[in-house]
Amino acid sequence: MQNFTYHNPTRILFGAGQIGSLRREVPQGVRILLTYGGGSIKANGVYDQVKKALAGFDLLEFGGIEPNPTFEYLMKGVELARQEKVEFLLAVGGGSVVDGTKFMAAAVPYQGNEWDLVGRHIAPRSALPLGAVLTLPATGTESNGNAVVTRAATREKIAFSSPLLFPRFSILDPETTFTLSSRQVANGVVDAFVHTLEQYLTYPADAPLQDRFAESILRTLIEEGPRTLADPTDYNARANVMWCATQALNGLIGAGVPHDWATHAIGHELTAFHGLDHAQTLAIVLPNLLWVQRTPKREKLVQYAERVWEIRQGTEAVRLEKGIIATRAFFEAMGNPTHLSAYAVGEERFPEIAERLEARKALPLGERKDITREKVLEILALAR
Amino acid sequence: MQNFTYHNPTRILFGAGQIGSLRREVPQGVRILLTYGGGSIKANGVYDQVKKALAGFDLLEFGGIEPNPTFEYLMKGVELARQEKVEFLLAVGGGSVVDGTKFMAAAVPYQGNEWDLVGRHIAPRSALPLGAVLTLPATGTESNGNAVVTRAATREKIAFSSPLLFPRFSILDPETTFTLSSRQVANGVVDAFVHTLEQYLTYPADAPLQDRFAESILRTLIEEGPRTLADPTDYNARANVMWCATQALNGLIGAGVPHDWATHAIGHELTAFHGLDHAQTLAIVLPNLLWVQRTPKREKLVQYAERVWEIRQGTEAVRLEKGIIATRAFFEAMGNPTHLSAYAVGEERFPEIAERLEARKALPLGERKDITREKVLEILALAR
Repeated sequence: MQNFTYHNPTRILFGAGQIGSLRREVPQGVRILLTYGGGSIKANGVYDQVKKALAGFDLLEFGGIEPNPTFEYLMKGVELARQEKVEFLLAVGGGSVVDGTKFMAAAVPYQGNEWDLVGRHIAPRSALPLGAVLTLPATGTESNGNAVVTRAATREKIAFSSPLLFPRFSILDPETTFTLSSRQVANGVVDAFVHTLEQYLTYPADAPLQDRFAESILRTLIEEGPRTLADPTDYNARANVMWCATQALNGLIGAGVPHDWATHAIGHELTAFHGLDHAQTLAIVLPNLLWVQRTPKREKLVQYAERVWEIRQGTEAVRLEKGIIATRAFFEAMGNPTHLSAYAVGEERFPEIAERLEARKALPLGERKDITREKVLEILALAR
Repeated sequence: MQNFTYHNPTRILFGAGQIGSLRREVPQGVRILLTYGGGSIKANGVYDQVKKALAGFDLLEFGGIEPNPTFEYLMKGVELARQEKVEFLLAVGGGSVVDGTKFMAAAVPYQGNEWDLVGRHIAPRSALPLGAVLTLPATGTESNGNAVVTRAATREKIAFSSPLLFPRFSILDPETTFTLSSRQVANGVVDAFVHTLEQYLTYPADAPLQDRFAESILRTLIEEGPRTLADPTDYNARANVMWCATQALNGLIGAGVPHDWATHAIGHELTAFHGLDHAQTLAIVLPNLLWVQRTPKREKLVQYAERVWEIRQGTEAVRLEKGIIATRAFFEAMGNPTHLSAYAVGEERFPEIAERLEARKALPLGERKDITREKVLEILALAR
């Protein structure tokens, strides 16, 4: 096992009716900025629940945060928060709203070019405190210090992270997810699944508990993903997917083991440049990346095939391939195509994607830093 | 899934050499009280590592905290801390040292009869901050707000808990466990195993991730327990047992599911009255409790037999029984007898144990509150 530091201070309030706890969780006597997205929380009643829970609080609003939130739009919220001397941010929505709000939390007190917090990975020295009401289980942002922000002007989608950006609390009420579209649910399941695989399908580190925790999340998503699609109001299915998504990226399964974030890095380029949903890019990149990396990842791929997919027949090479095929089939069954052709992204764009990663000094990628420009092109070629 | 709140603010620093991080973790410019046990940390070099890491800090010491730490002895530490205006407690040792230090943390600022914090479960309103250097993986106290303290005068061993008593940080260096005796290691493995079972072997709550996380800990302990006994300096084996013990009682696997702490409750009486090691009592009580409760626990017992012990042949009744037998055999193989006769506790003492639980208003016990006085006597009779 590798040495590690694990610290996750977010308080999780999980279950039906927990939005009512907001009164006790937000700080008293300070001005709060409620942030949200395109208005789905107004349609599904979550907005009203939040307003009711916080009746009498000094509450301002900043809505309209888009999927893949942009630096340009978020800066409007930063200016509002500065002008109005906001002291607490309350994000109500999915990963994009929470991520955008994390950027605002870091940017409001930052003196300098705020994009540097993202593009140059400048560590913030302070941040506004924030809390979240999560309505779309997927990214794990409700219980980590990570965020991803896009700069529209340059079509850059970049992840950043700070221990100051853990939400103070996050409210996870599975009922708030009943009104999600199938596409949103499928994206969330794929996102959590890929987060788990990127901390698991690397090389053995003699860390059997972390391996089994990862396999637990994967098996549960395989069971509960279809169940939650089949009946949107199945509370327990929604609850189980929600809790899986949190555990997939709260630091737990990645403690003491190697990580491979290459799928996310390549996927971000596809979203920034071609507008695909985040999880759509992951479903496309991951199976092909696993195939290209099947030799360095051999031991863990064989373990994955056996323990997650119960593939026990045939040679190692056969079992390993069957595991990758099962992964692809799972994404497809959830409704996520695994080929770029489904989104009309042609191969003429592939060199540009590799170049952008190179320009960002992101290459080589992977747990062994062996995913070079050539391998990125090979992965994309397989993903046509 | 049941509603829950999950919050675990302890920062874990895990791995060889992490004691050197102490300088950054303890607060600057305050008087620190270093607490420890019978002196094993002086024999194995941990004391010297801690002193070296904290050279130049204002450090007082309070040693001699015994296994099953007593209120009476700990009050000496409380008085010392008050007299010397100590502002931070640093526990270096196993579960007893950390638990005893938690009591001191709550008792130092408490105005009133300090035993009430334990015996009457008065919630403390403030506590000294504390940190821990853990040298014996077992209880999970390094990452929760729980503690158990014994009153020697009345032979009462009682658990208490407060969110104020989570360590600010805990350092877990597997190398500090190389010098533990086989008995200490076996006790730790059994303790962590039973903690896990008491949050798992109840009734189904449609919480498959929590179930699988619990099964992950159990399977890992079954593998790594014997491995760590076979070679005390096998770093990864020690690391894996240590991380299992933390995860077994940090709130994670118990979030959203029913709990059954009956084995601990009965076990505490055996320790308080007959001086058995904590884990020795658990190894004796648990298999017999599972047998007596096999009907209400049927569904989870069958799942346990299949998923943890791979018992798939025979009727449900047969598989369930084989799972309990396997549990007993595991405890015995680790060196923990599962019968009271091994410790010369005769059946003439059984009524007294049931009476003490009754007097403490602890009965009925269990996830369904169906472990009555009669069942306690039945469990003890089977454990002869």
